[in-house]
Amino acid sequence: MKALVYGGPGQRSWEAMPDPAIEAETDAIVEIDTATICGTDLHILKGDVPEVEPGTVLGHEAVGTVIEKGAAVTTLEVGDRVLVSCITSCGRCRFCKEGHYGLCAGGGGWILGHLINGVQSDFARIPFADTSVHKLPPEIADEQALFLADILPTAFEVGVLNGGVEPGDTVAIVGAGPIGLAAVMTARLYTPSRIVVLDVADVRLDHAHAVGADETINNATTDAVARIMELTGDLGADVAIEAVGSPETFELCTELVRPGGHVANVGVHGNPAILHLEKLWIRDVTITTGLVDTSTTPRLLKLIADGRLDPTPFATHHFELAETEEAYDTFADAASTNALKVVLSAHPVQLEAGERKTLAGAAA
Amino acid sequence: MKALVYGGPGQRSWEAMPDPAIEAETDAIVEIDTATICGTDLHILKGDVPEVEPGTVLGHEAVGTVIEKGAAVTTLEVGDRVLVSCITSCGRCRFCKEGHYGLCAGGGGWILGHLINGVQSDFARIPFADTSVHKLPPEIADEQALFLADILPTAFEVGVLNGGVEPGDTVAIVGAGPIGLAAVMTARLYTPSRIVVLDVADVRLDHAHAVGADETINNATTDAVARIMELTGDLGADVAIEAVGSPETFELCTELVRPGGHVANVGVHGNPAILHLEKLWIRDVTITTGLVDTSTTPRLLKLIADGRLDPTPFATHHFELAETEEAYDTFADAASTNALKVVLSAHPVQLEAGERKTLAGAAA
Amino acid sequence: MKALVYGGPGQRSWEAMPDPAIEAETDAIVEIDTATICGTDLHILKGDVPEVEPGTVLGHEAVGTVIEKGAAVTTLEVGDRVLVSCITSCGRCRFCKEGHYGLCAGGGGWILGHLINGVQSDFARIPFADTSVHKLPPEIADEQALFLADILPTAFEVGVLNGGVEPGDTVAIVGAGPIGLAAVMTARLYTPSRIVVLDVADVRLDHAHAVGADETINNATTDAVARIMELTGDLGADVAIEAVGSPETFELCTELVRPGGHVANVGVHGNPAILHLEKLWIRDVTITTGLVDTSTTPRLLKLIADGRLDPTPFATHHFELAETEEAYDTFADAASTNALKVVLSAHPVQLEAGERKTLAGAAA
Amino acid sequence: MKALVYGGPGQRSWEAMPDPAIEAETDAIVEIDTATICGTDLHILKGDVPEVEPGTVLGHEAVGTVIEKGAAVTTLEVGDRVLVSCITSCGRCRFCKEGHYGLCAGGGGWILGHLINGVQSDFARIPFADTSVHKLPPEIADEQALFLADILPTAFEVGVLNGGVEPGDTVAIVGAGPIGLAAVMTARLYTPSRIVVLDVADVRLDHAHAVGADETINNATTDAVARIMELTGDLGADVAIEAVGSPETFELCTELVRPGGHVANVGVHGNPAILHLEKLWIRDVTITTGLVDTSTTPRLLKLIADGRLDPTPFATHHFELAETEEAYDTFADAASTNALKVVLSAHPVQLEAGERKTLAGAAA
Repeated sequence: MKALVYGGPGQRSWEAMPDPAIEAETDAIVEIDTATICGTDLHILKGDVPEVEPGTVLGHEAVGTVIEKGAAVTTLEVGDRVLVSCITSCGRCRFCKEGHYGLCAGGGGWILGHLINGVQSDFARIPFADTSVHKLPPEIADEQALFLADILPTAFEVGVLNGGVEPGDTVAIVGAGPIGLAAVMTARLYTPSRIVVLDVADVRLDHAHAVGADETINNATTDAVARIMELTGDLGADVAIEAVGSPETFELCTELVRPGGHVANVGVHGNPAILHLEKLWIRDVTITTGLVDTSTTPRLLKLIADGRLDPTPFATHHFELAETEEAYDTFADAASTNALKVVLSAHPVQLEAGERKTLAGAAA
Repeated sequence: MKALVYGGPGQRSWEAMPDPAIEAETDAIVEIDTATICGTDLHILKGDVPEVEPGTVLGHEAVGTVIEKGAAVTTLEVGDRVLVSCITSCGRCRFCKEGHYGLCAGGGGWILGHLINGVQSDFARIPFADTSVHKLPPEIADEQALFLADILPTAFEVGVLNGGVEPGDTVAIVGAGPIGLAAVMTARLYTPSRIVVLDVADVRLDHAHAVGADETINNATTDAVARIMELTGDLGADVAIEAVGSPETFELCTELVRPGGHVANVGVHGNPAILHLEKLWIRDVTITTGLVDTSTTPRLLKLIADGRLDPTPFATHHFELAETEEAYDTFADAASTNALKVVLSAHPVQLEAGERKTLAGAAA
Repeated sequence: MKALVYGGPGQRSWEAMPDPAIEAETDAIVEIDTATICGTDLHILKGDVPEVEPGTVLGHEAVGTVIEKGAAVTTLEVGDRVLVSCITSCGRCRFCKEGHYGLCAGGGGWILGHLINGVQSDFARIPFADTSVHKLPPEIADEQALFLADILPTAFEVGVLNGGVEPGDTVAIVGAGPIGLAAVMTARLYTPSRIVVLDVADVRLDHAHAVGADETINNATTDAVARIMELTGDLGADVAIEAVGSPETFELCTELVRPGGHVANVGVHGNPAILHLEKLWIRDVTITTGLVDTSTTPRLLKLIADGRLDPTPFATHHFELAETEEAYDTFADAASTNALKVVLSAHPVQLEAGERKTLAGAAA
Repeated sequence: MKALVYGGPGQRSWEAMPDPAIEAETDAIVEIDTATICGTDLHILKGDVPEVEPGTVLGHEAVGTVIEKGAAVTTLEVGDRVLVSCITSCGRCRFCKEGHYGLCAGGGGWILGHLINGVQSDFARIPFADTSVHKLPPEIADEQALFLADILPTAFEVGVLNGGVEPGDTVAIVGAGPIGLAAVMTARLYTPSRIVVLDVADVRLDHAHAVGADETINNATTDAVARIMELTGDLGADVAIEAVGSPETFELCTELVRPGGHVANVGVHGNPAILHLEKLWIRDVTITTGLVDTSTTPRLLKLIADGRLDPTPFATHHFELAETEEAYDTFADAASTNALKVVLSAHPVQLEAGERKTLAGAAA
C-alpha cells in the first residue's frame, strides 16, 4: 500500500509501505475511504512530538471500510463502514470503564499516527476495534462523519462540556482555527445567549461568523477584556474556551471569565502559563484541561444523522489520497489558502481545476 | 463598648468604640459571646489587605445573642443565640440566589472586619441579618459552633466539595494549619480511603494525625510526589487540596494529582504560580479556586448537632474578650504556642493558669 | 380598584375591591399592566382547590409597575417595571436558600391568587418583593415577559431540567396544551434530536408543530408506544414529559420511556396513578415531580432579551383588564376558541373587532 | 463437575453436569472457590422467573480462580483470583460504554444463573471475562469480596447513589434483609446524620443496629410515618430506600420522604404500586428504579482493601459447596435460622458442629 510516512523532523513522503495485518484478535483492518490532516500532524512534522518515530504512518482521523477482523471482534462485520477516531479504547481498563478513553491505560489512548501507524494510507490496522470505531449508518456521508474523528468531539467535550455551557450563557472562545470553530458549532447545541470569538486574524473571525459566532473581537487591535466586560455588564464571560495553545491566550481566558465561571483549555500547550492566583483565589473559577475521550461521538453522530449538526463547512479543500503531500502544503499554509480542513479521498475527486468547497459554501 | 481596633499596619488595640446601632431595617445588633481570630486577621495587621481602613474593628467569626433588630428582620427574635459567619449575604442578588454568598453583589460577601466593623468586640452590627446569621439550637454549645464561622465551611466547600472527594479516594492535603486540618476533618465525611497530609513542620503533621489523617509527609525532608506515587500505584492523588497559599504548594498539588483528578485551591495567595500547561493540557485536570459561600453551614451545624462532626479540637487556647491582644500574640506565634484557634469569651474563662485545652484533648 | 374575585365554586366577578396596602416592610404594591389566566385558575373556579376562600382575587401571572414599597425593600424603586411570578420567595428559609422557592417555608411559595389576593386586578400587594419579582429591562416588552410568570419556567424546570434533556435526545411530550407547548419551546434550548408531541386533539398537535415539535402523534387514534418504539429503534424515548395531569397519560409516559430514561411529571394531578414496578424496577427509570421554583426566570429573561426565546406565540387573544370575565370564557373554551393564553391589558387593546393574534402569527 | 441445577419450580439438586468449556474467545473458565445464594435464587425456585429454563445451574455471586481463557482475553491470566459479579458486561454496547452494565445490550446484563449456567458449581464459564470479572488483590480475602458480587453494589448504586445520600441527611431504609442492611452499611460512607431502618421483624431490626443503623422502627407495631415526622421536624426523610419489593413498602417510602427528597427503589417487585400523584405532584420528589450496574465494584473493593468497609458480618453461615442444598434450606428459612448470607466454599469449612459466624461476630 501507499501511505504518508514521517521521516523525521521536516520530512514526509507518500510512499510504499507493507500492508497492515491482524496482530491481535481484537484488531480490525480498515480500508481508508476518506481521511484528513490535523494540526497535530504539523506539530509532529516540526519535531514537536518526539515520541513519534521516523517510519511511522501519520494520521488519526478517517472513515473507512472493515476488510478483515480478528477472532475477538464481535460487533463489526467485514464491509462495515466505520469512523476511525483519534482515540483508541481498550474498553477494559479503569479509565475506559469510566468513559475516559483518552486516558486509556490498556494500550489505547492517542496511538494512531503517534505510537503506531496511522490512517493517512490505503489501509490501517485498528486495535481494539470493537471499542474504538463507530459504525456509520447509511444516511451519514463520509464527509459528514470525518470531522467527528477529532475536532468535533474535542471541541465539544474538552471545550463545551468541560466548560459547562448553559442556555443563556456568554461564551468567549479564544482562537478561530478549526478547534475554535468546532467549539462555536457545538456550543450552539446549548443555546448560549452570545458566542464571542477572539482571534488576531480577521479572516479567521469571518469563519467564526460563518459557523455561528454572534460577535468577534480581533484581540490584536481591540482590548478584548474591556470589550467582554462591556458586553457582560462588567461581569465577564460565563465560559472561556482556550483554543490556541499559548500562555498569552490562556492568561487572557482567566482575565475575561466572570467570578464563578469556567475556563476550559482545549489548546495544546508547549509552554507553561502564569496563573494569577493572587487575583483568582477569591473568584471561584474552575479551570479544566483535557485530551478528548470521544465518549460523545455516538451522540454527535446522532445529531448529524438527525440534521442538528453539520460539520461539512470544515471541508474547505478536497484531494485524492495520492495527493496527500499537496494537501499537507495546502493545510500548512492556511494563512494564504484559507484552509480549515482538507478531505483526502480514496476515490477520484470530482472538482474542476481550482474549485474547492469553501467555508461559506460557495466555490472559490 | 470595647473592641479590637486596627490602627494601620502593625497596630492594633483593645479600646473603647461607640456601640453599634441599627442602620438599615435588615440589620441586627448582636452581643458577642464568643469570637475567634483568623489567619486573615494577621494578614490585615501586616498591611496585606489595604482596603481595611484604620479604625476598623477586626474579626469575622463569632457566636452571639441578638439584642436588637431592624423592622425588616422577620426570622430572628431578640434573645436568639446565633452564629455570625464570615460571609454576609444580601439574599437578593443573583449570586446569593445561586447560593454563591461569597460573591454577593448586593452589599454582602466578606465585609465584617474588612469593609465594616467586625466582631472582636462586645457588640456588632450585622447587616442582612435574616440571610446572614444562623440560629443555634440549644444542643450546640458556643465553642462547637464557633469554627463554623469560617474554617469548617471554607475547608468543606472550597476544598472537599470543590475537589469532589468520593468514597475510596486518596486525598492529598497540602498544609496542616487550621484550614488544612479542617479539610481533613470534613473530607472524612465522604470516607476517602486515604487522607495524606503534607507540611514542612512535624508538629503540624501531628495535629493532622490527631484529626484523622491516615498518613503524613514532611515535604521539607521527603520527596512528596514520589511518596504519593508510591502510595497510589504511580497514578497520583484523586484530589489535592492546597491549604497554604504559596506558589510552590500550588504547583506541588498539580504534580501529585492523578490524570482526571482535582486540585482544589483553598489557600489565600499573594503571588502568581506557574501552571505547567505543557504537561497538564493532556491530563484532564480540574483546578478550582474560591472564597467560601457558607452555603453548607446549616448542613455542618446539623452534623455537629447529630454528633457526626466535632470541631472543638481546634479550640486550643481560651481567653476573655478583654484579653484579645494577648490572644493575638498567642495565635500569631503558633510555632511556639502550638495554637490552632483561640477562643475569645465574653464570660470568665474557668481555667487554671497555664491550662489550655489542647488538640489531643489533654491539658498542656 | 377593580379585580376578578372568586365567589366560591363556579362564581367569579370583576368587581370593586379595596386597594391593597403595604402590610409588611418587605411588601411592594404593583400596578398591574398586563396579566393572564392560568389553567389552575379554572381549577379553582371548579372548586378543585378548596383552600382558596371566596372573596379572593385570582391570578398569579402579571407584569406591572412598582408604585409603593416597604422600608425593607432595597432592590426595587417606585416606577420599576417588574415581572410578578406565580411563586413568592421569602428568601430566608432553608428551601429558598437552596433555590427551591416553590417549597418556601417562610410564607411564600404559591400564595398569589391562592392564599392571598392575586394579580387579576388593577393593583396587587406582593410580599417579599425583593426576592419575588424580577425587574424587566426596557428591551423586553410586557407580552414577552408575561408567560415567564408561570408556564415557561414550569415547563423548563419541572419538565426539561428535571427530565435532563440533552443534545441528541428523543423527547416525548404528552399533552399539547400551553404547558406542553412551553416544554417543546424550552426543550429546544438543549437541541434534542427529536421532539415528539402526543395529544388526542389534532388542533393542539398543530400548535405543537408551530412551536417546534418534530413529530406529533394523536394518541387517541395511533398506538403511541408502538410509534415511539419505531422511531427509537425499539428503545423508547430518552425523556418523557407528562403535561396533562391524568393517570393514563402518566402511565403512558412510563411505557414509552427507554431503560435508563427520565419521566418528568409537570401535570397537576387529582388522582393517583398505577406505577408498574413489576416492569419498572429493572429499567433504571427516574421519575420526578415538582412545582416550579422560578429559579430559572432570570436565565429565561436573558434568553428572551438576547433573542433566543420568544414566548409571544402563546398570546393568542387580547383583552382589556375590564374584560377579564370575557377572557375567562374565551380561555375556558379553548376547544372552540383555540386560545392558548389570553393577555389582559390595563391599556386599550388596539385590535380590529375579531382580530386576535394567533399561534402561527397570522390574523384569525 | 457438580452443580446446583434448577429442575423447574420447587426443584433443585446438586448433581453432575458437564464441565464448562470456552465457547467464545472472550470467555474465561473459573474454578469456583466461594459462592453464595441470593434471594433471587429463591424467587427462581418458586417459579417467579419463568425465563430460567430447567437444567440451568443457578448462582450469580462467586469468587474463583481463572483456569482457562479465550484468545481475546487480555487482562486476565490463568491463576488469577477474581470476583465473579452478578452482571456481565460486553463492554462494547452503548449501555456498557455509559457504565450501565445492567442494561447491557450486547449479550450481558444479568445472565449468570439466569439465561446461562451460573456459579453454584465447581466451575463456571464467564462470558466477556475482561469486562465482567474483577481481579482480587491478595489483601482481600474471598469472604470479604464475595458480597460485592451483588448485594453491596446493588444497595450502594441503586439505593445510596440513586438516592443521593449526603452528609447530614436522614435516610430511611425500609426492609432489613440483606439488601437493606447493605444499604445501611454503604449509606454510612456519606455520613448521614441518621439512618432509620424500618422492618416488621424485630430480629432483623437487631441486625440493622449491628451494621450501623441509628434508629429502628417496627412498622408492624409503630406508626412509621408519624415517627419519621417526629424525628425530622415534620419534614420527612431526605432519602427513602425501598428494600423489600412490595407495593405497601414502596408507598410507605413515598409517604415518609420529605418535599424535595428521593425515593430509591431497590426491591424486586412482582406487583404494581399506587403512586399518589395527587399528593406528590407538588412535592418535588424524585423516584428511581434500577438493576445494579456493578460499576462501583472497583471502588467498593478499594474501600474493603483500605479497611473502610467490612461486609463479612453478612457471612452468618458457612457450608461446603457439596452442602449447597442444605445451605438453600438454611437461607430460605432465615426467619428461624437468622441467616443473612451463606458462604459456600470449595474447601473444607473449619467449624465445629453448629458453630456459625453470626452477625454480631459472636458464635451462635
